Amino acid sequence: MSQGKRIVLASRPHGEPTSANFRLEDYTPPTPGAGEVLLRTIWLSLDPYMRGRMADGPSYAAPVPVGGVMEGGTVSEVIASNNPAFAKGDIVLSRAGWQTHVLSDGKGLAKIDPKIAPISTAVGVLGMPGMTAYTGLLEIGKPQAGETVVVAAASGAVGSAVGQIAKIKGARAIGIAGGKDKCAYVKNELGFDECLDHRDPNLAAKLKEACPKGIDVYFENVGGAVFDAVFPLLNAFARIPVCGLIAHYNDTEAHAPKWAGAMMRNILTKRLTFRGFIVSDFAAMHGDFLRDMSQWVREGKVKYKEFVTEGLDSAPEAFMGLLKGANFGKQLVRVGPDKA
Amino acid sequence: MSQGKRIVLASRPHGEPTSANFRLEDYTPPTPGAGEVLLRTIWLSLDPYMRGRMADGPSYAAPVPVGGVMEGGTVSEVIASNNPAFAKGDIVLSRAGWQTHVLSDGKGLAKIDPKIAPISTAVGVLGMPGMTAYTGLLEIGKPQAGETVVVAAASGAVGSAVGQIAKIKGARAIGIAGGKDKCAYVKNELGFDECLDHRDPNLAAKLKEACPKGIDVYFENVGGAVFDAVFPLLNAFARIPVCGLIAHYNDTEAHAPKWAGAMMRNILTKRLTFRGFIVSDFAAMHGDFLRDMSQWVREGKVKYKEFVTEGLDSAPEAFMGLLKGANFGKQLVRVGPDKA
Repeated sequence: MSQGKRIVLASRPHGEPTSANFRLEDYTPPTPGAGEVLLRTIWLSLDPYMRGRMADGPSYAAPVPVGGVMEGGTVSEVIASNNPAFAKGDIVLSRAGWQTHVLSDGKGLAKIDPKIAPISTAVGVLGMPGMTAYTGLLEIGKPQAGETVVVAAASGAVGSAVGQIAKIKGARAIGIAGGKDKCAYVKNELGFDECLDHRDPNLAAKLKEACPKGIDVYFENVGGAVFDAVFPLLNAFARIPVCGLIAHYNDTEAHAPKWAGAMMRNILTKRLTFRGFIVSDFAAMHGDFLRDMSQWVREGKVKYKEFVTEGLDSAPEAFMGLLKGANFGKQLVRVGPDKA
Repeated sequence: MSQGKRIVLASRPHGEPTSANFRLEDYTPPTPGAGEVLLRTIWLSLDPYMRGRMADGPSYAAPVPVGGVMEGGTVSEVIASNNPAFAKGDIVLSRAGWQTHVLSDGKGLAKIDPKIAPISTAVGVLGMPGMTAYTGLLEIGKPQAGETVVVAAASGAVGSAVGQIAKIKGARAIGIAGGKDKCAYVKNELGFDECLDHRDPNLAAKLKEACPKGIDVYFENVGGAVFDAVFPLLNAFARIPVCGLIAHYNDTEAHAPKWAGAMMRNILTKRLTFRGFIVSDFAAMHGDFLRDMSQWVREGKVKYKEFVTEGLDSAPEAFMGLLKGANFGKQLVRVGPDKA
C-alpha cells in the first residue's frame, strides 16, 4: 500500500484564500474493518461552494474544521472491500474529500458504470454541477420557448449546462464569461446565441443589446457586476434561481448590489421571483436528471469541457484559480490513475 | 338626476400626497347609450396601490393621467340600463373610480348578491384585498401547520385576512400594527398569537421573542423597519410574498433596506423565496377564493372591520390617512346610500 496524502484546512481565509490556508499531510491509508471498503481517489472535483466550507459563517452546511480534510466530491476506486455491496475494482461516486484514500461503510456511495460515459463526468455534467444546472433552471427558472435566459460563468461546469438546456427548451441563451477564448467557445462550440466578456467595461450596454426583449430567467451564480448589468433588464415575471455568488465569496464585508435600494420595489412591480437553492433540495429529481442529461450528452446536445490539473498537490492552487476564473471548463484534479 | 361629483388627479405628488394633488369637480352624469348602463357609486374602496397610480414611474399598471378621475374599485347600483344583462337596481362590483356616476358597457362588471353578505365586503374581505391575502399567502407563502407567519398592517384589509387564514391552516400568526388599540384587536378579536406595535423602538427584539422558532412566511406589505426586523429571523426555506411596500410609497428616493448587502447571500444560504405578485396574477383562483372565504366569514373564522368616511369629498383626506395608518380596518368611502 502506497503512502496516503491529504490536504487539510490549515487556517480560515480572510478574503482570498492563500496557500497558507492549506496544508499537505502524509498518512497511512487505513485498513477496512467489518462492512467497510477502502477507496482510492481517481478524480477530485473542485467547486466554488468549497469556499463556503472554509469559513465558519452561517450557511447551509457545517464548515470544515481547522485541521480537517477539505471536503469534496470524488470518483474513487474500491481497492479493498469487506462490504458485500461493493467489489474490488468498482468505481464509485464518493465524498472522499481532498485525499488519496478513505474508508467508507458504503453509505452514500453510488456505483458508476464506466461504459455509459467517462467516469469523470460523474462529478461534472452527469453529476452535481450538471444536476445543479438542470434542477435550478427547470424547477425555478422554468424557461419557455422564445424567452431569454442569461447565465454567467458560461464556460464553467454549471453555466455551460444551463445555457445548453435553455437552448433545448427553445429559449435564447446569453452567456457571460471571462475573456475572448471562453466567449468564443460558449458561442461557437456550445451554441449559445451570444456570449459577453464580464471584463468588458461596456458590459451593461452590450447585455442590453444582446437581450432586446429583456431577460426572463437569470441563473445567478456570480453576483457582482454581472447582477448589476442584469437587474434593470429583468422582465415582468422574471425568475432568478440563486445558485451561487462567486464574485462575493472572498468579500470581507457585505457589499450591497448597485440596485439594492430598488430591489424590493422591483420584485413587487415586476412580479419577480428570487429563489435560492442547492442541488440537494431537488434530490427527488435525480432520476429525471440522469435520464435527460445522459441522453442529451449522447446526442451531442449538451457538450462539456474539463480542465484538469495533475496530482493532489495541485488542488489548492487550482482551487484558488477557480475562484478567479483561471479554469476553462469543469475543474478536476487527477489524484490517481483510472486503474491502480 | 342629481349633479355628479368626481375627484381628479390635479397634480402628481412629490413624496406624501397633499390635498393640492386632488381636485373635486362637478359634472352632469351622462346618459347611457345603446348597450350601456349608468352606475351610481355606493361604496368606494381606498387602497394603498392607488399611490402608485398617482405617480408616473414604471409599474405594473398605467398611471392616472393628470386631470383624470382617480381610479378605484366600487360597489355601485345600476340606475339606468340599456344592457339586457343588467337591470335597474342591480348591485355590481365596478371600477368606477372616485366619482358618483359612470357609464359602463357592462364589461368587467360583476353582480353582487346582497343576500350573501353586506355589499361592502365585495371590495373588502370578499373582494380584492381578501383575495390578495388568500392567493399571496396560499400560493406563495404556503404556510404549513406549526410554521410561523408574520404580517404587518395586521388590522388592515389584507393583513387581517392573512393572519386569520394562516391560523386556519394551523400556522402561528404574528401581526404587526400601529398602536395599542389595533394590536389588542388583532390579538383578541382576530385571534393572532401575538401582535406588536411597529412604533415600538424594541420591535426587532420583541419580534424575535414572539418568533422563537424563526419566521417561515413573511407576507410583505410594508417594507421599512418591519422588514429590517423580520429579515434576520427568516428560517431556511422561508417564503416572502411581496404584495406591497406602503412604508416606501411616499419615498422620494430609493432607500436600501438595512440588510441589502446581505440579501442575495441570505437568499442563497437560506434558500429563501422572494416573489412579487398582484392579485390579478391569480385570477384563475377566484372561484376557490370566493368559496373558501365566504365560508370562513360565515363560520366566523375570518372577521373583518370596516373604517368608513362619509361622502366622496372625504376621499382625499381618508386616502392620505390610509398611507399613514390612520384607518382602523378596511378603508371605505360611503359615496351614496344603499338605495337611492
